[in-house]
Amino acid sequence: MATKLLSRYPWATSPFIVGAPMRVMSGPALALAVSGAGGLGFIGPGIKTQNTHVDLEETLTLIRKQQTQPSSFSSHTSSSSLLPVGVGFQLWGDDIEIATAAIQKFKPCAAWLFAPRDGPEEYDTWSRRIREASPQTQIWIQIGTLKEAKQLLQISEKPDIVVVQGAESGGHGRSEDGMGIMTLFPEIADAMESSQIPLLAAGGIADGRGVAAALCLGASGVAMGSRFLASKEARISKGYQDEVVRATDGATATKRTLLYNHLRGTFGWPAGYSPRTIINQSFVEHQAGTPFEDLKKRHDEALKLGDAGWGPEGRLATYAGASVGLIHGVPAAETIVQGVRKDALQRIKSLGSVGL
Amino acid sequence: MATKLLSRYPWATSPFIVGAPMRVMSGPALALAVSGAGGLGFIGPGIKTQNTHVDLEETLTLIRKQQTQPSSFSSHTSSSSLLPVGVGFQLWGDDIEIATAAIQKFKPCAAWLFAPRDGPEEYDTWSRRIREASPQTQIWIQIGTLKEAKQLLQISEKPDIVVVQGAESGGHGRSEDGMGIMTLFPEIADAMESSQIPLLAAGGIADGRGVAAALCLGASGVAMGSRFLASKEARISKGYQDEVVRATDGATATKRTLLYNHLRGTFGWPAGYSPRTIINQSFVEHQAGTPFEDLKKRHDEALKLGDAGWGPEGRLATYAGASVGLIHGVPAAETIVQGVRKDALQRIKSLGSVGL
Repeated sequence: MATKLLSRYPWATSPFIVGAPMRVMSGPALALAVSGAGGLGFIGPGIKTQNTHVDLEETLTLIRKQQTQPSSFSSHTSSSSLLPVGVGFQLWGDDIEIATAAIQKFKPCAAWLFAPRDGPEEYDTWSRRIREASPQTQIWIQIGTLKEAKQLLQISEKPDIVVVQGAESGGHGRSEDGMGIMTLFPEIADAMESSQIPLLAAGGIADGRGVAAALCLGASGVAMGSRFLASKEARISKGYQDEVVRATDGATATKRTLLYNHLRGTFGWPAGYSPRTIINQSFVEHQAGTPFEDLKKRHDEALKLGDAGWGPEGRLATYAGASVGLIHGVPAAETIVQGVRKDALQRIKSLGSVGL
Repeated sequence: MATKLLSRYPWATSPFIVGAPMRVMSGPALALAVSGAGGLGFIGPGIKTQNTHVDLEETLTLIRKQQTQPSSFSSHTSSSSLLPVGVGFQLWGDDIEIATAAIQKFKPCAAWLFAPRDGPEEYDTWSRRIREASPQTQIWIQIGTLKEAKQLLQISEKPDIVVVQGAESGGHGRSEDGMGIMTLFPEIADAMESSQIPLLAAGGIADGRGVAAALCLGASGVAMGSRFLASKEARISKGYQDEVVRATDGATATKRTLLYNHLRGTFGWPAGYSPRTIINQSFVEHQAGTPFEDLKKRHDEALKLGDAGWGPEGRLATYAGASVGLIHGVPAAETIVQGVRKDALQRIKSLGSVGL
């Protein structure tokens, strides 16, 4: 299954390492660097919002320009009209017209769909429109519960890949039904086995150990978010990135909460989703009962501090997964991709060769 | 490290599969069957309580008798005076005098220590007393947080093995700081690397996929609880066991809660510990606001129903891990041990041989 999967992304090598679509933080530089290293980079959702002056068309134009420059994967992709990066969409908030127009024009190799407002039938609508706009663009769908897995078996437009996200993840995931990837993945894999759709594992994976473990669970590859927040190419403030590197003990340093969304003025996520965040003063005071209005004022003051607004004494949103304790530096994305791939392979070969 | 570890349990083969000490449910038959299959079986804590008329001396006497019968591991153990099973202790509730007297008399190969009342210094006291009573008995300590891992580096009597338990577990674990084993294990492994103490992974592992994944994370072996609840040798009511087999979707079907402890009259666990349970009417009504007194009355009525007291419409405690969705039958413990070992090895070899 993994081999068949990789044939759709001819520049990619095994094990398949994916840079998750993180709003704002996954920009063209990061996505291209991940793909350039033999993985697959996604750019985050691209609709302009109050906080993120990012435009999908501009982003994809930039990627197309940069792609034509010499790189390790240009020879593989020159024969294809597809962009060697994917694009993520949050269905509840993103505009299908803008999305499909951009997909038709730029033909990204993959579209990663997530978080419908009303139910799985939205996946059908989006997948159909995307496939009309660009038949070769692969449809990826991200889920985090067994219920969603079973729903995917019922929709008409089958995804090409399903990403299974565990509760360790930093990106928005299931608050109530959240479960660690160690049990969630195999249970979903069993439920979806008949579909023959390749599954990727996401959430809590930040090094070669996690990649190797995910492959043993049956994953055809791995998507990482937090690990790439601490990469040279991430589009991220230094204060935020420093926190991802500094934080240890993911179990106590991070929490799933909507608080920071609300402090940033982000409302409207469908019920049951929340992101994981490195906690700081905003959360501590929230737990202590400080009214939201006061937290909001202090948060907005902290915004003016720039990088000093982050940190244990800071107040700004520091979205990251439980894997922060495994992240200790800010290498180039290429170094990350090649490093985790090499380490995963070595671990598996070493375990296999000694017969354990 | 794994090879050195196994030399202490000469009947055991790699990968090292351990049957966790589950109060009541892990009796002599299960422990001996796990060890007989080349793993290591533990019996649960053995102090007599209102609910469990189990006596440690009686249990170990029974094991010594059964051990002398022909079995696959008797040849390995005949040269040793150690019992080929371990014993688990909950430090907050178990009596150190009873424990060490039994250890001195029966010399189990390992003592698994867990849940001190006041702090890690209790491990020192227990370990010293156990080593005085039986120098060859190996000291195992179970932890679930990075904080505990760092505390273990400070105690005088170093454990021989540390079991790292993820939030997926059924057995009592950390409620507040609970984290999936996928990130918890490698972060603890990094923190404890200098100690050279072998680490086992526990929580959410019920098949060869989980075993292989745990080995990739750096574990020297795996401890399973829930998987052995659904074994022929488990000392468990049929109604309870049927639920472990029936339940699916571990993320929604199980919760960490103290409710069922309290309904059973079990109080006194140190702060911050709770078990995971397959939820039923007691939990549903608790969530809906039914007073504890009413739940207790209904629970005690359900006790009289026997096996019918379990199930989705039942009310009795059904402790189990999030891996219930991976458990589909009640084989012999030997079949479980050999099956997960074989599957784990095949997965690793297969991944290694194709270069992924």
